[in-house]
Amino acid sequence: METSSESSGGKIPRSSDDDYTAEAGSKRVRFVQERTGASLKHVASYSFDPATLPGNVEHFIGAAQVPIGVAGPLLVNGEHAQGEFYVPMATTEGTLVASYNRGMKIASAVGGVKVTVVDDAMQRAPAFVFESAREARDFGLWLKEHFEEIKAQADATTKSGSLRDIQQFPAGPTLYTRFNYTTGDAAGQNMVGKATAFACKWIASHHPEIRHFTLESNFATDKKASQVNMLHTRGKRVIAEIVMTPDQVREEMKVEVEQLFRTRLVSNLGAFMAGANNNGAHSANGITAMFIATGQDAANVAESSVAYDFSEIRPNGDYYRSITLPALIVGTYGGGTGLATQRECLEMLDCYGDGKVNKLAEIIAATVLCGELSLGLAIVAGHWVTSHDKLGRNRP
Amino acid sequence: METSSESSGGKIPRSSDDDYTAEAGSKRVRFVQERTGASLKHVASYSFDPATLPGNVEHFIGAAQVPIGVAGPLLVNGEHAQGEFYVPMATTEGTLVASYNRGMKIASAVGGVKVTVVDDAMQRAPAFVFESAREARDFGLWLKEHFEEIKAQADATTKSGSLRDIQQFPAGPTLYTRFNYTTGDAAGQNMVGKATAFACKWIASHHPEIRHFTLESNFATDKKASQVNMLHTRGKRVIAEIVMTPDQVREEMKVEVEQLFRTRLVSNLGAFMAGANNNGAHSANGITAMFIATGQDAANVAESSVAYDFSEIRPNGDYYRSITLPALIVGTYGGGTGLATQRECLEMLDCYGDGKVNKLAEIIAATVLCGELSLGLAIVAGHWVTSHDKLGRNRP
Amino acid sequence: METSSESSGGKIPRSSDDDYTAEAGSKRVRFVQERTGASLKHVASYSFDPATLPGNVEHFIGAAQVPIGVAGPLLVNGEHAQGEFYVPMATTEGTLVASYNRGMKIASAVGGVKVTVVDDAMQRAPAFVFESAREARDFGLWLKEHFEEIKAQADATTKSGSLRDIQQFPAGPTLYTRFNYTTGDAAGQNMVGKATAFACKWIASHHPEIRHFTLESNFATDKKASQVNMLHTRGKRVIAEIVMTPDQVREEMKVEVEQLFRTRLVSNLGAFMAGANNNGAHSANGITAMFIATGQDAANVAESSVAYDFSEIRPNGDYYRSITLPALIVGTYGGGTGLATQRECLEMLDCYGDGKVNKLAEIIAATVLCGELSLGLAIVAGHWVTSHDKLGRNRP
Amino acid sequence: METSSESSGGKIPRSSDDDYTAEAGSKRVRFVQERTGASLKHVASYSFDPATLPGNVEHFIGAAQVPIGVAGPLLVNGEHAQGEFYVPMATTEGTLVASYNRGMKIASAVGGVKVTVVDDAMQRAPAFVFESAREARDFGLWLKEHFEEIKAQADATTKSGSLRDIQQFPAGPTLYTRFNYTTGDAAGQNMVGKATAFACKWIASHHPEIRHFTLESNFATDKKASQVNMLHTRGKRVIAEIVMTPDQVREEMKVEVEQLFRTRLVSNLGAFMAGANNNGAHSANGITAMFIATGQDAANVAESSVAYDFSEIRPNGDYYRSITLPALIVGTYGGGTGLATQRECLEMLDCYGDGKVNKLAEIIAATVLCGELSLGLAIVAGHWVTSHDKLGRNRP
Repeated sequence: METSSESSGGKIPRSSDDDYTAEAGSKRVRFVQERTGASLKHVASYSFDPATLPGNVEHFIGAAQVPIGVAGPLLVNGEHAQGEFYVPMATTEGTLVASYNRGMKIASAVGGVKVTVVDDAMQRAPAFVFESAREARDFGLWLKEHFEEIKAQADATTKSGSLRDIQQFPAGPTLYTRFNYTTGDAAGQNMVGKATAFACKWIASHHPEIRHFTLESNFATDKKASQVNMLHTRGKRVIAEIVMTPDQVREEMKVEVEQLFRTRLVSNLGAFMAGANNNGAHSANGITAMFIATGQDAANVAESSVAYDFSEIRPNGDYYRSITLPALIVGTYGGGTGLATQRECLEMLDCYGDGKVNKLAEIIAATVLCGELSLGLAIVAGHWVTSHDKLGRNRP
Repeated sequence: METSSESSGGKIPRSSDDDYTAEAGSKRVRFVQERTGASLKHVASYSFDPATLPGNVEHFIGAAQVPIGVAGPLLVNGEHAQGEFYVPMATTEGTLVASYNRGMKIASAVGGVKVTVVDDAMQRAPAFVFESAREARDFGLWLKEHFEEIKAQADATTKSGSLRDIQQFPAGPTLYTRFNYTTGDAAGQNMVGKATAFACKWIASHHPEIRHFTLESNFATDKKASQVNMLHTRGKRVIAEIVMTPDQVREEMKVEVEQLFRTRLVSNLGAFMAGANNNGAHSANGITAMFIATGQDAANVAESSVAYDFSEIRPNGDYYRSITLPALIVGTYGGGTGLATQRECLEMLDCYGDGKVNKLAEIIAATVLCGELSLGLAIVAGHWVTSHDKLGRNRP
Repeated sequence: METSSESSGGKIPRSSDDDYTAEAGSKRVRFVQERTGASLKHVASYSFDPATLPGNVEHFIGAAQVPIGVAGPLLVNGEHAQGEFYVPMATTEGTLVASYNRGMKIASAVGGVKVTVVDDAMQRAPAFVFESAREARDFGLWLKEHFEEIKAQADATTKSGSLRDIQQFPAGPTLYTRFNYTTGDAAGQNMVGKATAFACKWIASHHPEIRHFTLESNFATDKKASQVNMLHTRGKRVIAEIVMTPDQVREEMKVEVEQLFRTRLVSNLGAFMAGANNNGAHSANGITAMFIATGQDAANVAESSVAYDFSEIRPNGDYYRSITLPALIVGTYGGGTGLATQRECLEMLDCYGDGKVNKLAEIIAATVLCGELSLGLAIVAGHWVTSHDKLGRNRP
Repeated sequence: METSSESSGGKIPRSSDDDYTAEAGSKRVRFVQERTGASLKHVASYSFDPATLPGNVEHFIGAAQVPIGVAGPLLVNGEHAQGEFYVPMATTEGTLVASYNRGMKIASAVGGVKVTVVDDAMQRAPAFVFESAREARDFGLWLKEHFEEIKAQADATTKSGSLRDIQQFPAGPTLYTRFNYTTGDAAGQNMVGKATAFACKWIASHHPEIRHFTLESNFATDKKASQVNMLHTRGKRVIAEIVMTPDQVREEMKVEVEQLFRTRLVSNLGAFMAGANNNGAHSANGITAMFIATGQDAANVAESSVAYDFSEIRPNGDYYRSITLPALIVGTYGGGTGLATQRECLEMLDCYGDGKVNKLAEIIAATVLCGELSLGLAIVAGHWVTSHDKLGRNRP
């Protein structure tokens, strides 16, 4: 039985039998077209089976077609990703694919990008409010004493997640906590939410004095960049690095090491003074394009795009450049990874399914570094000024 | 003439005649399939004309199909958007559309969301490096004296952009600046980049002592959240607000005002202590879903998702809740807005083209507020504990 | 033998025999007077024995006389400090003592201030730089495996300090660490520096691949406020709290709970948006005045003044207010605590010497809370405006 | 008439005739001694006339004697301070004076420290709360239109202060503002408070819709470090710089430029990741010691200690190092500057009274830079490790 658009008033029609059919979608498309006057011809043109959508979207009417360009080959020297990759990037920003492609070309010419996953943590952050700070502190001690029991409760709810530790941050009458988990090949936000709720139920039934409780206290910080995540990792903490000799820089980039480096110095202080969560160039571009292509939750760009640049001229004159992504939230299982185009893009990278999440993290971080190289070069090559070479001199 | 995949080695094939044809795309699809073994059947299934893609993507191989759900009706009381809207949300995160839809239902029941665009600025942030701080300071004075001439240079490059002011931030031997523009209906990042480069060329030719120059110094801060953007706006600064009586809260949300408010207090301190750039709940979800659907640059989620929540219980007992988006980067012209599905989604909102950008900003902010209401409610309803109503008591 | 001022050129004279005598001081006083023309009559008037100064100052010429006012009685309900205290405050800022005194009077009238020390950590933050992130990560694992041996090295250098744990923060090729200690009754900065240097010597001799090493990497963050210290404590983390009934607020403060609370809401968002490290009112005032009086290192005001305010109206209408000092660096042994006036001021509080450090921390935090109450009241009482009581109406 | 301690209960005795006499002080000393059992012999030993204390302290009982050491000569190349200075530093931290003295010696040997005051602003930050954001935005436009009238009101309250501009920061229903002033030779916090209160009275009587008002909204941010002050200056923004040839570094510091520089790179990323408000070494030490000596408000160390380090190796190999103090709050008139030892210390620097405030700011900043050089050197010289020169190798 269905609520027809004709009788629904302003209410969006849903099918109470099965809302994930082409018909259910079409009915909503007609409803929207009638109400708004807009044509949804392209939106309604999709190639996937609507039956694949439960768990990914409600009230579906079709699909956004986000153009995908391919960049590569990207030469990666990771612990999980090794060799050349062709990287799918879904974007509407012109030059993005070309810029990453140029960076990949440079990187490949000098031996590729080294990548390392250095930490792994997904969290939910319940807060426990007491009469006063004293009870909150004592509860904190109690939490430490009962960690194994709490972990048993949390871990019982999931087969791939595992509670690592519980961090404590007391303030006022409240103990803010972070329940940190590893989550296998899933990004894991839902998994850790469920596990933490279950563990907190046990906690509440065994510790009587909790005055208020909230399962999330803005300390996770889901869909939000934060210092605590930059310090302590959310998702994967991944570091991509490259070393180039001065000759390689000259040959591949047509600039001098010192030019690249000096611009980094100015930008690093700029980021510090601006209070930015990223002293690099544009990690968000590569991450977003790959997230959309591969079925990651693109809203996590808010936190995943934070980055630390560290560059140096090594004692032997080599140019070392790295990007650290402290909160890269990725999965190769669950979420949007199984959808039609998304799965294909993961398969392009041999990153679909079990045991692939660190590989995907490495490829994304390597891609980001190539974008940093490329944009850094663009800024330097176009706009460098010295006392002997004034701004604009070289530009017609 | 084309580079065939057969002869390209690892190089991605491009057509030197016209790279934006179905054939050029297919050639790359075959190339990628051969190289990676992946099928790209769905990726290669798109309904748009590849000839529309220049300026949006390079090396195109097809499209990501991101499921779109529709939420609404959303009742908006803006200065530009007024009445009911059906909101397209492109996402792969289950429950997202349903959650926003629930928030819209609540908001509609109490008279809708009031929205106001309060500021408008897009910027590029060149840095000028001198021998010492003294020359940098004097250059700053010179910049102020010559603002009108500089503005004339910048404004000459664009018909819809206009240089508002130049902010100065001195540190060490460097004057960091922000060239702030209004940009009409375009998001305007490219526009302001070009205008600022042109203005800086004039500056460099009229002020001799600049030792180094960089067109961007991480002070913009493009694709990065930052305090400076949160303070001074990037894109539109938009505020969405709602007021509910205690009875309305009880009826529509099945909770008490005090419950909603108390959880906000705990979350606000959580965000402050966590060093988050957002003390709200999940603005990134709504913004990202609408950005992808409507052809905005989704990488701007990095900065656009920052938000300030402010809630209060008014003297008469009413519940006031607001969300301030200080860096919402949107356009209804240019970028991805003219692409096939993207344009349709803008048209669903009557937001395609000239004179529509503030309307779109208002609808997005109103949507975000509905999401805050809905998630806030979920947290409270599921997990509230008092001394008389312990955690888990109500949950089987 | 001495270097006379007559022959020293511009060099400040020192006595090579014993530089901590009245004569050595007088010689420098004469030298400065000759060079600068200033009289140092008052500077040279001190009552302490110069022989007490080694370890506290070099090139001494006398003393700054900072006026001390006394505030109180302050009623404290701590775990270490209990009862009434008279608090010495060294300051040159008029109204400061009076304001704190008023706050103490209010607090005493409603049963005093509850205070709890909830955490204790002093740290040094060495960084270890490697060829690449991979070696840095592996070193991190090695550090964990060898914690007991490292702790043995560190703890061997001190009888009151004890290494608690080592936190790791990887970025680029570097592993940043925080070596966290408890330090008994000393503030402990020097103690942990020495212990960490000793431990790092052992580390370097047992782990061969360290490319660079620095004993301090701006992660401690000594004499600097930082998010990491606000999250993880530097010195003592102390929380002071008070609960007042609406009648008590009305009687003692002549305002309504709602007025106090509403102003806090506005100020809390102000602090968040301003990027402040403190959403309270003026903790630095009380802390600085007590630090100078009691021989604490006043430069630590940079980090010790950070604070979290949390206020709420409890379900029964009571006004709860707290201040959390996450980085209060205090000692009752060592540093300036044994100097003449400084020791007397500690003795006023019965806080001199062994076993007193938590007591001192509690008294300082209680004092800070009284200052918050008092300034909060001043802002509200003087400047509150409602639609019925406009700004300035009550002010002639 | 006086309240005797005998009859006061716990109340601190005050003289209603004249509380600023030796007798009034002695009475309180006896009271405190009786109550606490502590001797206050040294506290009660002061050389100043108590009649000088009104406006600086209440309930005075004597003075803290903070040891003063002298460092120098410091060679300054400022616009206001030129030549050699002997710098009074009040501290109880051993090695502090010696360390600054060493830095001054290095700086003098290479031509001294160049210093420039680049900005000047003292502020009060009222917030205006409205029914909704729309009224707040319109009020913002009104404020701009009426700036001259508001300025006339503010400036009428002071002869040395002048309202520069009003910054606006909208969020929710509130317009946060910063009223920025220049304040002559006074630090000016009280001056701008009074001027702003007066201006706001005029505002409230001319703009009817203000729902709530608070004269301070944590946007100033008085006694608190903040991004907004780091961006926009509080007090003076001062930059101290030095350039050394590689030979000078080798000769005066016994290290290589590259060693100094590399440690800065590691520390700069450390500060960024730690969320510190200062990427330098220990500006708080020099600032606090000079603040206490010269009668500045030492509680302002909270905000004045924030700093930006910027170092580089110039193309010719020279080592450039600078420190930017964006919020140095100083006065040479008012506050504690006229007290006995404080005035003498200002006179040592020829910085007492009118027309001296920028000179004092320059000397303090130059001093801070010398401390950065000295501590930077200590870290490098003691703890540098390369693959050929392991940590500890050179240390017995």
